[in-house]
Amino acid sequence: MISTKSIQRKIDFKTKPIGALGDLEVLGARICEIQDTLHPKLTNPHIIVFAGDHGIANSGVSAYPQEVTYQMVMNFLQGGAAINVFCKQNNIELVVVDAGVNHDFKNCDNLIHQKVGFGTKSFLEESAMTALELEKCFSVGNHTIHEIQKSNSNIVGFGEMGIGNTSSASMIMHKLLGLKLEDCVGKGTGLTDEQLQVKISLLKQASKISSDDSPQEVLRNYGGFEIASIVGAMITAAENKMIVMVDGFIVTAAYLIAQKLYPNLQKFAVFCHQSEEQGHQLLLESLNASPILKLNMKLGEGTGCALAYPIIKGAVSFINEMASFESASVSQKN
Amino acid sequence: MISTKSIQRKIDFKTKPIGALGDLEVLGARICEIQDTLHPKLTNPHIIVFAGDHGIANSGVSAYPQEVTYQMVMNFLQGGAAINVFCKQNNIELVVVDAGVNHDFKNCDNLIHQKVGFGTKSFLEESAMTALELEKCFSVGNHTIHEIQKSNSNIVGFGEMGIGNTSSASMIMHKLLGLKLEDCVGKGTGLTDEQLQVKISLLKQASKISSDDSPQEVLRNYGGFEIASIVGAMITAAENKMIVMVDGFIVTAAYLIAQKLYPNLQKFAVFCHQSEEQGHQLLLESLNASPILKLNMKLGEGTGCALAYPIIKGAVSFINEMASFESASVSQKN
Repeated sequence: MISTKSIQRKIDFKTKPIGALGDLEVLGARICEIQDTLHPKLTNPHIIVFAGDHGIANSGVSAYPQEVTYQMVMNFLQGGAAINVFCKQNNIELVVVDAGVNHDFKNCDNLIHQKVGFGTKSFLEESAMTALELEKCFSVGNHTIHEIQKSNSNIVGFGEMGIGNTSSASMIMHKLLGLKLEDCVGKGTGLTDEQLQVKISLLKQASKISSDDSPQEVLRNYGGFEIASIVGAMITAAENKMIVMVDGFIVTAAYLIAQKLYPNLQKFAVFCHQSEEQGHQLLLESLNASPILKLNMKLGEGTGCALAYPIIKGAVSFINEMASFESASVSQKN
Repeated sequence: MISTKSIQRKIDFKTKPIGALGDLEVLGARICEIQDTLHPKLTNPHIIVFAGDHGIANSGVSAYPQEVTYQMVMNFLQGGAAINVFCKQNNIELVVVDAGVNHDFKNCDNLIHQKVGFGTKSFLEESAMTALELEKCFSVGNHTIHEIQKSNSNIVGFGEMGIGNTSSASMIMHKLLGLKLEDCVGKGTGLTDEQLQVKISLLKQASKISSDDSPQEVLRNYGGFEIASIVGAMITAAENKMIVMVDGFIVTAAYLIAQKLYPNLQKFAVFCHQSEEQGHQLLLESLNASPILKLNMKLGEGTGCALAYPIIKGAVSFINEMASFESASVSQKN
């Protein structure tokens, strides 16, 4: 196994002052450790967008109607969404998975069909999904990672689409971190102040449906099919030593559960963007995570991963391609 | 002229919640305004590294010996430095200019030879350069921008190499912003605490050589040939409506002077990275600038520009390539 010391030595002998590449050096060293090599490589980067609908979506927790989930899936398939543009720009393969959208996509070829159901139940009154559905979601995640591994990919980012899913993320955070609900809830994609109050009081009601705060039960009670699929996919990716790019609020909530179920995931995770959504910052703090980018975005879809990817690539490139003081005949520090 | 309103309308009709792309939307709108179009384009991006030596370098203000300036120029020409790696990765053309290195580069073909002198005078005792040398630097900057414009480039980033040049940047900041010298001085590329105290007391001495705090005189007294060339180049770039990418501490100090000489520069400037160097944050605050990246780097060379470029490109791509709500048949907000 490559030692931390030999990785650091390689970085410190590059033609730059010690530590001058800051966060890129830390990231580069981590990738060397993940890949157990002094010559790290990123192969065939993928972003997987999991989509699913939420029973709670039509209760007044979202600024958009539920049908936007399937419409945006169609938009992904046609190449018109932000995540399409950023993936194309940065040569990232985009994969879209129907994990449980409330729409029949029967004629869509370039969609991965893994529908667990036509949306979850509303967790205002009952658990969002059954134990069997949760198991199916884990399989969906697992299956999707195995699919992209066929192309020899070693880095994968996660995105999501699901009207109402900031409510799931808030509930997961509230239940698992024991934080006040008010601190975990934000305006999502555009609620007014008044609508935000309604969302908070609805989620307070939802909080009462269960007192079992184990990660798996919280996920079953409040998660979406897309969120649970991400949990499964992250764990499979980490088991296969892939770099796991974590996007915004919802994906970070999925990560929170995944790393409780599989603590070793931490080693493989790269946090890509701190979103503007209230709660995300708090959630990142609780995870001791400081994302690569802070661009005040609040879109999801994996956009933070796609935009952070060139920086991650830079962290690998400098380790492989920069000259050393010796090879370039540059004098070292006095 | 394209109105701000029509730009905003185009952005708001993209398939995403209003404002969801955060800083990218602001940046994209600015680029539309700079280029006076709803279809912005980045053509042939360049980064120019200006190199120059400093008389003060051997007085104990830097952790590295002066010869590192020319050695690093050779490293740039051979493709081994961090800026080479990041430019190559992001398809940016790198141009290296000898504005005044204390070395004879006679046999280097791929260097732009514009030597104003073999390093500046030490500003511990006298002005770093003469009025004539300052004029020459402005011409060097102007000439270099005209050269890269031949390739139809419309976006240019600035980097620098010059052992000792954080001292120049600190003096410029101290003199022009009236801030305490201690707040403007940092450890550069690796001074110890003790060496930092020596640097501060040397710069206090340097402060006394002139009481003329006009931008041009401050630049002449304390600037380097590379810094003054950047000032000239930034102004020419802005006059030609190019996007001006601003890198770290030293380039931001050059920007401080340039925008005092040519206030319209502000419209064209994109701040790329907030460096770890003490003083840079203060300087950025005084300019009301919030850079795209904060990666704790302290390297210069234009590395912040090269790493931020894909984000800038993203801001242009989404405006051109994303579908609108109408074209993608996606429902709008309730």
